[in-house]
Amino acid sequence: MTETALLYLEDLKVGQKAAFGAYQVTREEVLAFARKYDPQPFHLSDEAAAKTHFGRIAASGWHTTAMVMAMIVENIHRTGEQGLGSPGIDELRWLKPVYPGDTLRCETEVLEVRPSRSKPHLGSYRASMTVLNQNDVPVMTYISNVLIARRPAG
Amino acid sequence: MTETALLYLEDLKVGQKAAFGAYQVTREEVLAFARKYDPQPFHLSDEAAAKTHFGRIAASGWHTTAMVMAMIVENIHRTGEQGLGSPGIDELRWLKPVYPGDTLRCETEVLEVRPSRSKPHLGSYRASMTVLNQNDVPVMTYISNVLIARRPAG
Repeated sequence: MTETALLYLEDLKVGQKAAFGAYQVTREEVLAFARKYDPQPFHLSDEAAAKTHFGRIAASGWHTTAMVMAMIVENIHRTGEQGLGSPGIDELRWLKPVYPGDTLRCETEVLEVRPSRSKPHLGSYRASMTVLNQNDVPVMTYISNVLIARRPAG
Repeated sequence: MTETALLYLEDLKVGQKAAFGAYQVTREEVLAFARKYDPQPFHLSDEAAAKTHFGRIAASGWHTTAMVMAMIVENIHRTGEQGLGSPGIDELRWLKPVYPGDTLRCETEVLEVRPSRSKPHLGSYRASMTVLNQNDVPVMTYISNVLIARRPAG
């Protein structure tokens, strides 16, 4: 894709892969998110986290999904994907803790591409998302369902 | 549950229901989250949202999951649930847009309760989560998998 091309349903093929993103996880951001949205001790204090399987402060799983969304939107802006939001996510799994100092990246693969039965301008696709840290360890996976515009006729 | 009771795996029964939370969704918070984590036009501008099925600025779906987590943690603090984090979420569905001005609340039902096969102090449960707005319209649903401590012997 060039910078200015637009990506429609017709451009997606099953098996198509993409890799993008480099999100630096900072302690400050992990704490700020946890304080507001997930103030469990193992997200706020190294001492409390040391008593759990986390070992030290780990990011909220919902913070990880948010950081991943930031990478996705940056990628959408780059590819020009004509996405129209998502009806939902399947099989979201937090496999390993995400720690301050980690750098996260994304790998995706298109699993299914479907034109809408009722809306001729619309379609959807399913894709697997794997989020990896700087050691290439998968920390989170999910399957996304995404609405996308069809290429306008003519 | 009284304020000081602790809630262990043994206290959970299939079919058990809970209702909690009253999260006021503000325009300022919707914009702040979207700018940082999901800067798609329909989360940032009423004009852009008017061209989509959202109609006006709607919260990022990942913002909704974060706001719901804030309600869950508040509820955990109230019930004393000895939760140990979550391995994942299934069937996350964003059913209706969440708008600034909405007030969200949660309804949960325990679907399954299981002691760990390998770890005697640990168990897990599955629960359905339904998030409703002030008009009692379900806006988001998911099924959570949660690790929880077993009641200490003696």
